Amino acid sequence: VDVEVQESLLAENDHLAGHNREHFREAGLLALNLMGSPGSGKTTVLEATRARTDLRLSALSADLATDRDAARLQAAGIAARSITTGSACHLDARMVHEALHHWDAGWDADVLCIENVGNLVCPAIYDLGQDANVIVLSVTEGPDKPLKYPVMFRKADLVLLTKIDLLPYLRGMDVEDIRAALERTMPEVRMIPLSAETGEGVADWVGWLEGRRNAVASRATAAAADRDIMVQPG
Amino acid sequence: VDVEVQESLLAENDHLAGHNREHFREAGLLALNLMGSPGSGKTTVLEATRARTDLRLSALSADLATDRDAARLQAAGIAARSITTGSACHLDARMVHEALHHWDAGWDADVLCIENVGNLVCPAIYDLGQDANVIVLSVTEGPDKPLKYPVMFRKADLVLLTKIDLLPYLRGMDVEDIRAALERTMPEVRMIPLSAETGEGVADWVGWLEGRRNAVASRATAAAADRDIMVQPG
Repeated sequence: VDVEVQESLLAENDHLAGHNREHFREAGLLALNLMGSPGSGKTTVLEATRARTDLRLSALSADLATDRDAARLQAAGIAARSITTGSACHLDARMVHEALHHWDAGWDADVLCIENVGNLVCPAIYDLGQDANVIVLSVTEGPDKPLKYPVMFRKADLVLLTKIDLLPYLRGMDVEDIRAALERTMPEVRMIPLSAETGEGVADWVGWLEGRRNAVASRATAAAADRDIMVQPG
Repeated sequence: VDVEVQESLLAENDHLAGHNREHFREAGLLALNLMGSPGSGKTTVLEATRARTDLRLSALSADLATDRDAARLQAAGIAARSITTGSACHLDARMVHEALHHWDAGWDADVLCIENVGNLVCPAIYDLGQDANVIVLSVTEGPDKPLKYPVMFRKADLVLLTKIDLLPYLRGMDVEDIRAALERTMPEVRMIPLSAETGEGVADWVGWLEGRRNAVASRATAAAADRDIMVQPG
């Protein structure tokens, strides 16, 4: 019964995620599912991003309790709302849909960052309708996380390797070991090492973000043109 | 239906956890549920503990994939077995029961450390039959984790604050902020700051461990004496 219930919940979630995805595409909005361990630096990355790009960012921040992350993002000039999940260890498509309902500031953006619950397991299983999965992994977590949490890294489009300013103080930690672990789990390895503290690498991440956002915007423009052709008489 | 299924699973788990707990008590074994984020230092703490105590340790190490943690513990001289959970984000009482079945080395110890899946959410919800919950929280995760993951910290008997050797390099991080956050969530604040790297604080942790182990052993001795009295004639 447990497995059947789980499958039926996932099927319902996929349906709702498809609905979210349609809305994102129509709006020309790049939607990212930002995942990672507690304290890996998801909110800090967004704060650092805001200062280094002209893209208009909006964010949904999920936590079991408190709206601290959303408050931090608002203070950084990002339109942000919190989703409080109680005891749930991940977001699902319905929570995202409800949080975005009648929230104009969230849609009036180029990029919607959905900051998931800090957790390297379950968030990867629930599609939210996002365009891409971005995993925030901090160097302090050690080099073996991609091997130990493969469910998440198999679904990653990009890994942001954060807190690299701490590398000199971490014994037995080598960025190449993480890259090797990603090669064994990620479909196509894309990793950007960065430090929000020193700013190193943030420009690379912003470059990735702007490239993805441009692709989404072009797709939305082409779709709108198609619709125009279809409604025009013969 | 979802809530009912969840409640029935938890009831079944509690029943099995009670069964485990009886076995631990009869064996005079101190069983700990060691929880924390991925990369918080659960395995490293156990390695450092082994070198600084005469207590006989055994360990169950849970991960979605790989037996890396159990292999590290074995290399450190700790009797260890891995539990591979696949996509499950937490241990339950049945997994622990099965892993301990016919595993003499696991029982031939003073302390059984059950190293849960790296996750600050769900492991707290599933009782395994342990005597105490020990949360491993690293200073690199930031000061607000107890507020954001209250479900776990409400159930904590002890918080090991790890990686304190990195404190000089972390901006905006203060041990007192973590203590203040614990005061708002933990029933009774017990926090031991430590560094497996420098050894600082490890003796305090070993002292706690030995105290708890002695209490469990005395209880087992008293229970055995009670049984002897009861079976003796007149």
